[in-house]
Amino acid sequence: MTLALEFSRPPAALLIEAQIRQALEEDLGRSGDVTSDLTIAASQMGSARLAARKPGRIAGLVAAGIAFQLIDPGLKFDVLVPDGSPAEAGAILATVSGPVRAILTAERVALNFAGHLSGVATATAALVEAVKGTKARIVCTRKTLPNLRILQKYAVRCGGGFNHRFGLDDAVLIKDNHIAAAGGIAPVLARVRAGLGHMAKVEIEVDTLAQLEEALSLGADTILLDNMLPDDLKRAVALTDGRAVLEASGNITLQTIRAIAESGVDYISSGAITHSAVNLDIGLDL
Amino acid sequence: MTLALEFSRPPAALLIEAQIRQALEEDLGRSGDVTSDLTIAASQMGSARLAARKPGRIAGLVAAGIAFQLIDPGLKFDVLVPDGSPAEAGAILATVSGPVRAILTAERVALNFAGHLSGVATATAALVEAVKGTKARIVCTRKTLPNLRILQKYAVRCGGGFNHRFGLDDAVLIKDNHIAAAGGIAPVLARVRAGLGHMAKVEIEVDTLAQLEEALSLGADTILLDNMLPDDLKRAVALTDGRAVLEASGNITLQTIRAIAESGVDYISSGAITHSAVNLDIGLDL
Amino acid sequence: MTLALEFSRPPAALLIEAQIRQALEEDLGRSGDVTSDLTIAASQMGSARLAARKPGRIAGLVAAGIAFQLIDPGLKFDVLVPDGSPAEAGAILATVSGPVRAILTAERVALNFAGHLSGVATATAALVEAVKGTKARIVCTRKTLPNLRILQKYAVRCGGGFNHRFGLDDAVLIKDNHIAAAGGIAPVLARVRAGLGHMAKVEIEVDTLAQLEEALSLGADTILLDNMLPDDLKRAVALTDGRAVLEASGNITLQTIRAIAESGVDYISSGAITHSAVNLDIGLDL
Amino acid sequence: MTLALEFSRPPAALLIEAQIRQALEEDLGRSGDVTSDLTIAASQMGSARLAARKPGRIAGLVAAGIAFQLIDPGLKFDVLVPDGSPAEAGAILATVSGPVRAILTAERVALNFAGHLSGVATATAALVEAVKGTKARIVCTRKTLPNLRILQKYAVRCGGGFNHRFGLDDAVLIKDNHIAAAGGIAPVLARVRAGLGHMAKVEIEVDTLAQLEEALSLGADTILLDNMLPDDLKRAVALTDGRAVLEASGNITLQTIRAIAESGVDYISSGAITHSAVNLDIGLDL
Amino acid sequence: MTLALEFSRPPAALLIEAQIRQALEEDLGRSGDVTSDLTIAASQMGSARLAARKPGRIAGLVAAGIAFQLIDPGLKFDVLVPDGSPAEAGAILATVSGPVRAILTAERVALNFAGHLSGVATATAALVEAVKGTKARIVCTRKTLPNLRILQKYAVRCGGGFNHRFGLDDAVLIKDNHIAAAGGIAPVLARVRAGLGHMAKVEIEVDTLAQLEEALSLGADTILLDNMLPDDLKRAVALTDGRAVLEASGNITLQTIRAIAESGVDYISSGAITHSAVNLDIGLDL
Amino acid sequence: MTLALEFSRPPAALLIEAQIRQALEEDLGRSGDVTSDLTIAASQMGSARLAARKPGRIAGLVAAGIAFQLIDPGLKFDVLVPDGSPAEAGAILATVSGPVRAILTAERVALNFAGHLSGVATATAALVEAVKGTKARIVCTRKTLPNLRILQKYAVRCGGGFNHRFGLDDAVLIKDNHIAAAGGIAPVLARVRAGLGHMAKVEIEVDTLAQLEEALSLGADTILLDNMLPDDLKRAVALTDGRAVLEASGNITLQTIRAIAESGVDYISSGAITHSAVNLDIGLDL
Repeated sequence: MTLALEFSRPPAALLIEAQIRQALEEDLGRSGDVTSDLTIAASQMGSARLAARKPGRIAGLVAAGIAFQLIDPGLKFDVLVPDGSPAEAGAILATVSGPVRAILTAERVALNFAGHLSGVATATAALVEAVKGTKARIVCTRKTLPNLRILQKYAVRCGGGFNHRFGLDDAVLIKDNHIAAAGGIAPVLARVRAGLGHMAKVEIEVDTLAQLEEALSLGADTILLDNMLPDDLKRAVALTDGRAVLEASGNITLQTIRAIAESGVDYISSGAITHSAVNLDIGLDL
Repeated sequence: MTLALEFSRPPAALLIEAQIRQALEEDLGRSGDVTSDLTIAASQMGSARLAARKPGRIAGLVAAGIAFQLIDPGLKFDVLVPDGSPAEAGAILATVSGPVRAILTAERVALNFAGHLSGVATATAALVEAVKGTKARIVCTRKTLPNLRILQKYAVRCGGGFNHRFGLDDAVLIKDNHIAAAGGIAPVLARVRAGLGHMAKVEIEVDTLAQLEEALSLGADTILLDNMLPDDLKRAVALTDGRAVLEASGNITLQTIRAIAESGVDYISSGAITHSAVNLDIGLDL
Repeated sequence: MTLALEFSRPPAALLIEAQIRQALEEDLGRSGDVTSDLTIAASQMGSARLAARKPGRIAGLVAAGIAFQLIDPGLKFDVLVPDGSPAEAGAILATVSGPVRAILTAERVALNFAGHLSGVATATAALVEAVKGTKARIVCTRKTLPNLRILQKYAVRCGGGFNHRFGLDDAVLIKDNHIAAAGGIAPVLARVRAGLGHMAKVEIEVDTLAQLEEALSLGADTILLDNMLPDDLKRAVALTDGRAVLEASGNITLQTIRAIAESGVDYISSGAITHSAVNLDIGLDL
Repeated sequence: MTLALEFSRPPAALLIEAQIRQALEEDLGRSGDVTSDLTIAASQMGSARLAARKPGRIAGLVAAGIAFQLIDPGLKFDVLVPDGSPAEAGAILATVSGPVRAILTAERVALNFAGHLSGVATATAALVEAVKGTKARIVCTRKTLPNLRILQKYAVRCGGGFNHRFGLDDAVLIKDNHIAAAGGIAPVLARVRAGLGHMAKVEIEVDTLAQLEEALSLGADTILLDNMLPDDLKRAVALTDGRAVLEASGNITLQTIRAIAESGVDYISSGAITHSAVNLDIGLDL
Repeated sequence: MTLALEFSRPPAALLIEAQIRQALEEDLGRSGDVTSDLTIAASQMGSARLAARKPGRIAGLVAAGIAFQLIDPGLKFDVLVPDGSPAEAGAILATVSGPVRAILTAERVALNFAGHLSGVATATAALVEAVKGTKARIVCTRKTLPNLRILQKYAVRCGGGFNHRFGLDDAVLIKDNHIAAAGGIAPVLARVRAGLGHMAKVEIEVDTLAQLEEALSLGADTILLDNMLPDDLKRAVALTDGRAVLEASGNITLQTIRAIAESGVDYISSGAITHSAVNLDIGLDL
Repeated sequence: MTLALEFSRPPAALLIEAQIRQALEEDLGRSGDVTSDLTIAASQMGSARLAARKPGRIAGLVAAGIAFQLIDPGLKFDVLVPDGSPAEAGAILATVSGPVRAILTAERVALNFAGHLSGVATATAALVEAVKGTKARIVCTRKTLPNLRILQKYAVRCGGGFNHRFGLDDAVLIKDNHIAAAGGIAPVLARVRAGLGHMAKVEIEVDTLAQLEEALSLGADTILLDNMLPDDLKRAVALTDGRAVLEASGNITLQTIRAIAESGVDYISSGAITHSAVNLDIGLDL
């Protein structure tokens, strides 16, 4: 089993069913699939295959399956290439069988989820592949598409990536504006420690090695190195010497990431894998 | 005023406020912006500017403004570059002023909307520019990201494009599976006309000139030419001779679209402008 | 099979379940069916019949069935007279069996849906019958009861009628105020065509033959003749000569409709079939 | 001030705003009022009058006002003929002023509420008028249109009627099936009294004078006389002699109600005033 | 069967499922049970027992069961000690079996419902026990924890108590402020009777015997004696002499209640049983 | 300013408004505050004071204020004793002025929030006071009342306590079942580290000093000592010697907590402060 498969942790149906239902309502509007209702007999049965038109890393079949079953609980959806797996072009990912009307009614929403999320997983997997052999892990950010965060973060895991915080509430990330408002790194850390319990992580963003040194001296154990060049990142890693977990961010592309990873940082974060993922072309063939 | 500005038709607040609120809830989780709450005094006031880091066509500031005001009705949001307008890199798009905490709490959600929707508008505008001088209009599809259809379709308008149907219910689009199920083009059109009122459009998809001819002979007035090469499209236009509105789809890229447009078709539809749009980098500077 | 049965197109459960659940919540309030809970043993089983007390066209059994099953998925609901069928007084429309408590708890909501929607279907069927032999089709309007539009439009189809647009968004209907605001028929049509894609219908309302002539000359293909007398309608049909689809509206009653239909118009729209339908008396007998 | 005005008790905005918003969403669909957006300048201001086309009792302007303001909080809505008042044909009921687009976008939903609810109030007022001089009060039932119960019950009050229970939960109404299940009037009343607190009313339905006598002897203080003829009702009143509140139901029409009221019963309940009310024609004139 | 068991009337699943789902969403947040997902194989099956750590009256297993099944419909939940029954310390209340991950994911929410509601039932049962042999019934109030009213009122019934009104709408309770505003007991009763139908109870609160006498003389049949000492309560009972139902409230504790009950009042209401109930310790053992 | 005041961090209105609205709907039901509507003139204005009947730590006035304003945006709510402050018996906490009807309609819901949350804060403050002078901080658990977690966790902060994780998703807490399922402390930590990113805390629960030693040797930095006696806790603190943050839980009462705190642990967690808090009596005086 690949690591992505093992640690993809599909979200509980309870957490995603509402938004899949909402997406179906968005597409069915007030009178549903008029075309299929007018042209296909209610009794016509059939089966269809979801096939990857291009190679990629698969994610979102779990949502596609829920979409089909919300339209008709009688539809049978069988996954052949589970979320988190790679697929070749032409690979049959899943089959769905039952009333043809229901298959066609749910088709577009099911494919919109699977195509987009597989796009996110594929973009993530490419970065993961690019840093292979280094210690760097790929993480996502809060630059996700509105109301798709749970599923996009899951797709990142399907691509072999890791998740950063899920929102403003589950971890503290101190940025330049917070430092400025509190009057410096020492007071900002003091304030946070005075008000925060022991179950939330605190990361502080630094732009320079001097700031890094100050943060380390104050006991910061998780530090974001923003927009540093590979050489500075190397110096940061050396300076830190294991005292803190280091994350690099800014200008991460397939071209730049290898050099960044080789600096020895622990995590590299990318917004593009969630906010600019290219849809993986998946089709449905009756 | 540009055409995109004039015909962008921003969605009523009633139609989008719920999803912007939902996106804020997604980001604030259960305990809100812990970092800002711990480090910035509730009384600190300030102002910030939303700036385009790259050139593009702007869309989604209307959503960004709602995001800020849902967090704090006291935030003042002023738009300088309205949705539907082009922006240079560095252009100040809008300003927001009021409590700094509230600005930072809403920042990411506001930018996620504006960045993504401006990405859609920018991709659309590129296609519109590419077909300039032909009669072809650019239209979107139902290949939209789940639960973002209203805003993505609006962003397409901001980019100078037009909207195809909004869902399965507001127009009929007869595809190969429907034709097969009904037993041919003639019976499928007969069934649709027998059951449908006068206020819904009917489009039929054809793959060959022979099918086109049959559809025209049966009075079809809106026809989708799927995956035809430019030469066949030219023949289709000639054959149709104004009897029907023609839409071309399939394999639409910035490289291929000019030749397709020059065939004389009326509409060219693209899924990529909504399902694979690259985020337009927009930042917030305090 | 009657036309109404064939083309009634019952709405997907996904589109109506929420409002049926809401109606049950409205009736059960906070503590449910206190009377039945206190007086009928949880274990008591039984069966009941839904019977038409008066003759009419049936619609809404699909909603009644969902109501029973939302209260208890163990209730068995069998339809004998499907939506879209005529029923004599005394006809058994459906049976429901299972726990008596659950049957009584759901009874009123189930009957409220079935009685009202059958009332709409019956009123529609009466108009359809009255224009039999003419080419006129009966259509509904947006004068529907709040939040019942999907089901009322379905009931109109069960009565043999057709649906006009479903809302403000799925088709354009230009009325006098729009014409006035835009500065006349020519500019209003120009504006609409400049901003609208190819998948939305445009209908324009005219009050006089002169307006009709202008609209036709500008290529309008769907025209609403508002409040014209039968003689003027005849002239309008002659003048149009097949160049546009014609809809008549205003003062449509069982008394007036035959003369209007005989004018040769294509569609006749009625608000009363949805906003003033008389409930069809349906009872439940244990 | 009329009694209906004084005791109409308009529902708190909190209780009805959600359904008015839902009705607007139902009408605006995904892209809103396309026609007005394309043809009327956003900046155009104007005002309009809501006028009764027919005489009747007014109800629902409170909902109409909320509809206008949900579309645009800047719309000014002034009521001239408050809910609960009678209106002559032609009477100006209210005015609304502000952006013309917003007025037209909200118009239909506002009128659908006002027209329907005024229809309910008008039907109620007719029954109230018919029993004038007797002690009988008119009450509604649970035969309301799905999800309109709060507003329909309010409209009944606007018509001078009173409300029966609001749902299955706020009072006990023992019918034949409950009596049969519990084994008679004595055991059914015993069970109810054993399980129910002191803040819920108990009414028992009887079909015969013998049953009435038994119920009275067991201390029942609220009794429903179902489907009795006026002569039997008179006997029931005499027999009861003030020991219980009596309600008559079944076959209540404008023709039959006077005789029923003159029997001396306290309450007469009608389902038709809510399930079969004829819309009161109200129009909007710009 | 105990009275509490017989008259507990568990709320319909329809009325409580939404809030149980909401409680699960509150606990699962955006990424669910990360700990169990990372450490327990999806395929691991097991079973667990819900056990009372302390003795008490059980309530809320119905909610616990729904919680488990919302997380995984495949979980089997068997109740051994039904809601409304007493349990010894150590008693096995229910078992749940199926995927271990799902059991652990739902555990806390299930126990939070069961522990709190059993706490309410236990507190109620203690008061019921304390008044044994008197005619006094224990009733709850509207001093319930926000959004838990349906379940808390059910737990009161499980404890052998009765329910007061469910909200502001289902019965009238006239307090000092209402009397003052209306100008005295006579006018306040007159106003209420003029505007209210026959299916809602009216209770009036009095503080003195003089007020009681006035209320009785005006025909009040349900009277709340607020904060009276046992001796005054006895005088009130004697004065009333069966003409009205009497409820005592204020300063109700296990210490004070017996003397109050022995005064002969019909009902004693307590806010503490719902707003200050001590959790009954219930654990889950795998 | 007290620490509790400074770090209470009131939840954003966006996060709590929905549940306050829901609580009002729960109390107003379908027809609202019938008593006040019938007895108090709509035009009557007045003001009222919220007063503490007993001494305690205040929390939840922020929710009370929203409750009043949701019923009537015209109500003016002024806080005199802000959330997080101590109050003497009799202290005026806040005033509210405007229409008397609206004040009375919102009263119970406002007080239910304020009384319960002040109860939680008061219970927390008592524990905080009891450990004064030690390094121990008081934290809450996930044993919160269903759907009140955000507000209860806030009330804990108002009492001077700290928050543990907010749900199953924002931190990892490894318990005995997880250790057993994974095959021991070493493999369970390995699995968690392999699958988890750098922004989520990991705490592991141990029952013995031997387990503690193993956990420390594997680098665990946050450890829960479950149900250990003070002497063992002292040994655990000595053994740990600053290598990890230590939390004690189990059998925490006002009697036991001082000895536990003096062991030198960093955090002490209590479920009772949220699941068994006694309501702080707060009244409203017109």
